[in-house]
Amino acid sequence: MNVQFAQDYFDKNRQTILDELFELLRLPTIGTDPKRLGDCARCATWLKQFLKPLGFDVELLTPDSGRPVPVLFAERLGENTAMNVLFYGHYDVQPEDPLPEWKTPPFEPTLIDGRVYARGAQDNKGQVFGVLQGIKALIEAGKPLPTLKILLEGQEESGSEALSLLAPKIASRIQADVLMVSDTSSGPNKQPSIVAGLRGVQHFTVTLTGPEHDLHSGVHGGVSPNPAQGMAALLASLHNPDGSIAVAGFSDRVRPPSQEEHDHAIKAALSDEQYEKEVGCPPAGGADGVNMMLRGSFLPTIEINGIHTGYGGPGSKTVIPSSALAKISMRLVPDQIPAETYLAVQKHLEAHCPRGMKVTLSEACRGAPGFRLPLNSPIFHLASEVLAEMDPRGALFRWEGASIPIVATLQRISGAAPLLVGFGREEDKIHCPNESFGLDQLVQCMTWSSLMVQALAK
Amino acid sequence: MNVQFAQDYFDKNRQTILDELFELLRLPTIGTDPKRLGDCARCATWLKQFLKPLGFDVELLTPDSGRPVPVLFAERLGENTAMNVLFYGHYDVQPEDPLPEWKTPPFEPTLIDGRVYARGAQDNKGQVFGVLQGIKALIEAGKPLPTLKILLEGQEESGSEALSLLAPKIASRIQADVLMVSDTSSGPNKQPSIVAGLRGVQHFTVTLTGPEHDLHSGVHGGVSPNPAQGMAALLASLHNPDGSIAVAGFSDRVRPPSQEEHDHAIKAALSDEQYEKEVGCPPAGGADGVNMMLRGSFLPTIEINGIHTGYGGPGSKTVIPSSALAKISMRLVPDQIPAETYLAVQKHLEAHCPRGMKVTLSEACRGAPGFRLPLNSPIFHLASEVLAEMDPRGALFRWEGASIPIVATLQRISGAAPLLVGFGREEDKIHCPNESFGLDQLVQCMTWSSLMVQALAK
Repeated sequence: MNVQFAQDYFDKNRQTILDELFELLRLPTIGTDPKRLGDCARCATWLKQFLKPLGFDVELLTPDSGRPVPVLFAERLGENTAMNVLFYGHYDVQPEDPLPEWKTPPFEPTLIDGRVYARGAQDNKGQVFGVLQGIKALIEAGKPLPTLKILLEGQEESGSEALSLLAPKIASRIQADVLMVSDTSSGPNKQPSIVAGLRGVQHFTVTLTGPEHDLHSGVHGGVSPNPAQGMAALLASLHNPDGSIAVAGFSDRVRPPSQEEHDHAIKAALSDEQYEKEVGCPPAGGADGVNMMLRGSFLPTIEINGIHTGYGGPGSKTVIPSSALAKISMRLVPDQIPAETYLAVQKHLEAHCPRGMKVTLSEACRGAPGFRLPLNSPIFHLASEVLAEMDPRGALFRWEGASIPIVATLQRISGAAPLLVGFGREEDKIHCPNESFGLDQLVQCMTWSSLMVQALAK
Repeated sequence: MNVQFAQDYFDKNRQTILDELFELLRLPTIGTDPKRLGDCARCATWLKQFLKPLGFDVELLTPDSGRPVPVLFAERLGENTAMNVLFYGHYDVQPEDPLPEWKTPPFEPTLIDGRVYARGAQDNKGQVFGVLQGIKALIEAGKPLPTLKILLEGQEESGSEALSLLAPKIASRIQADVLMVSDTSSGPNKQPSIVAGLRGVQHFTVTLTGPEHDLHSGVHGGVSPNPAQGMAALLASLHNPDGSIAVAGFSDRVRPPSQEEHDHAIKAALSDEQYEKEVGCPPAGGADGVNMMLRGSFLPTIEINGIHTGYGGPGSKTVIPSSALAKISMRLVPDQIPAETYLAVQKHLEAHCPRGMKVTLSEACRGAPGFRLPLNSPIFHLASEVLAEMDPRGALFRWEGASIPIVATLQRISGAAPLLVGFGREEDKIHCPNESFGLDQLVQCMTWSSLMVQALAK
């Protein structure tokens, strides 16, 4: 068993693997969209059909309440080993809009220069598929394997409702030693990394209403309250002029990084110049005077994801819009409590509601806390050895700013130690138009899963 | 000749008049939309065909540069009189969006309970059509008439570009004593009013750009600048917490009302309760502590007409949008100079551009100044007498917050005294979905034009 094993398997089965990946990517599995519920069910069934021939017992589960987006649970007993490995991934994807900015159709995967372009090409279908292909290659090679359990859900991008409800009910079946997840990225210069922590997340919608209907901004300007203007003031009030969060009580519990965490994080940081080159603007967000890496890893955010109000077409339309809508998400760090931070923001928005208007919060998700893992665990040592086989530079420790809300829940219920190793890159443009995934990254996922699962079987 | 003349004419010719009005309203004459240029030309031709049989010489004019939206100029020499009357109106309308909020199609006029629903039903096609019908009735009755000149343009809602270019070239032909305009509203409780001043207007688009493409708000939150958040802060900076304008230099030239203007304005004011009942929210816009009527008539505004950035659909999409767009319009009062106020706002926006982002201004119109007319002119006396015939309460003097940018230009070039008497009402919802115009208002326009034109012939 060597580091070439997965590459050789890929080269030999290239067309089949691509055909299967494209089938998976063609399903528009937007977990939040009621119209795509059927596609989510089709995708879960597709994954079931993929796993059954490999010797997995596969079940599609739906909870008694909430939206019936299926959760796939699969299990394959291992030989000669006491280890239990739980792999978690998600088959739902972000909405495809803004559609006009896609150069190829989001649900018609297209291979260009060794990269597959499609919504979900990386996040998370591409990475999940790579991991499963690595396991398939191992099984076909007849290698000794640990007991493997697989959980694939269709609501990660929108709060993992079904899996959160189901996990406690199947607690005994998902007990494991390691919780493998490949939904994260490599470090700078593509160096492999172990993600030792994630931020939590919570999101909601804010609506500000004023006049009963849109008004003529000449007749009513300076008289009627203006929800577009009010929303700008309301949202601006969330931050101080130095970019720090202005919401009372929001940051009270923030746990600063340990010296060791701090030092590892700094080691994995991009320079300002590298960041600007990759992203197209300087890293000027967040609190002034705090290192970029520390801001993204160890500080919470309140981020405006969208504002929509009034006219936006060509030329002008001189109206006072009757309402304004904003989408807000927060990223949370240990030891912030989602219900507490939501309440703090809600209180702030209500207290700062501009004169003559009404503010309403809706579509709030339950939220998930952030977590950070101890760096000196046996599983991190083993993973570091495997990643050193794949890359002579070895692995970095990183704390990603993104969230996989269900990981903390699964850690608690399964008793497993999370192991987050993924092979995303900035150029993948996840959550954006023209998301893509390199075939080299796909092979990295295969290599990682085949080597790590083998290592866990010993 | 009495006040019943127009009503009798309407009753006798009701079906023909409605058929003609509906023909006019069916043309989607959105002057800013290149796709509707043909409809604008068809509308100008329709108006030409309407006026020719009444003895007018009619020409459709287009300027050498700019968009070829036709300006109609018509002239009919008067008998036994030295008076020259210039009537100005516009046949273009505001865009129809948001389309889903219309209960009947915006360009399929629908008569419900004595009101015609359509985009432009009031502003300004309905009022123009009423005035022209009044004149038609007079002509058919063989009454002595003054010399009548008519200017109808298709770009009032977007800055009157063509007419501004053409007016100086036809200066000698548009010389007149009175400039009649019916593009304003009655006062509270439908009391007739003479509008003795209008605010000027200027509008433009602001774009704020940050990252090259939308970013994942978890990965990049707190690191990348966020244009949605930046736009909120940028727009919020335009006003002080008390609602007054915060742009340095913007308000320097504002001319306060005279005691007489102040007293007339207060007399025509709605109470806070009346306002809230009509509009659905309290009159809480503009500078705190200034009377509502004075804010709307004698103070300038900087109004946000729209903000669009990032996600706005159901649920959440956790992005940092790569850019944000806002539509802004300003209402100006005497003696503000449009070029100066635009420069002040531009400087302010550039100076307050948030870190790491770029602000760009585009689609700026040339702008038009506000004006106020002397209250003791002979033409105002005559108009007051006519309006007292129509309503025993007589006429109020009012200063509207809206703008008809070309009026100041036409006043200067034609030498005519503006006489702004219109019969709009708040319930007409101009510039909004479900714009409408009552048949009683249509008859008011007919009555006004027939009586006033007769009075000017004496």
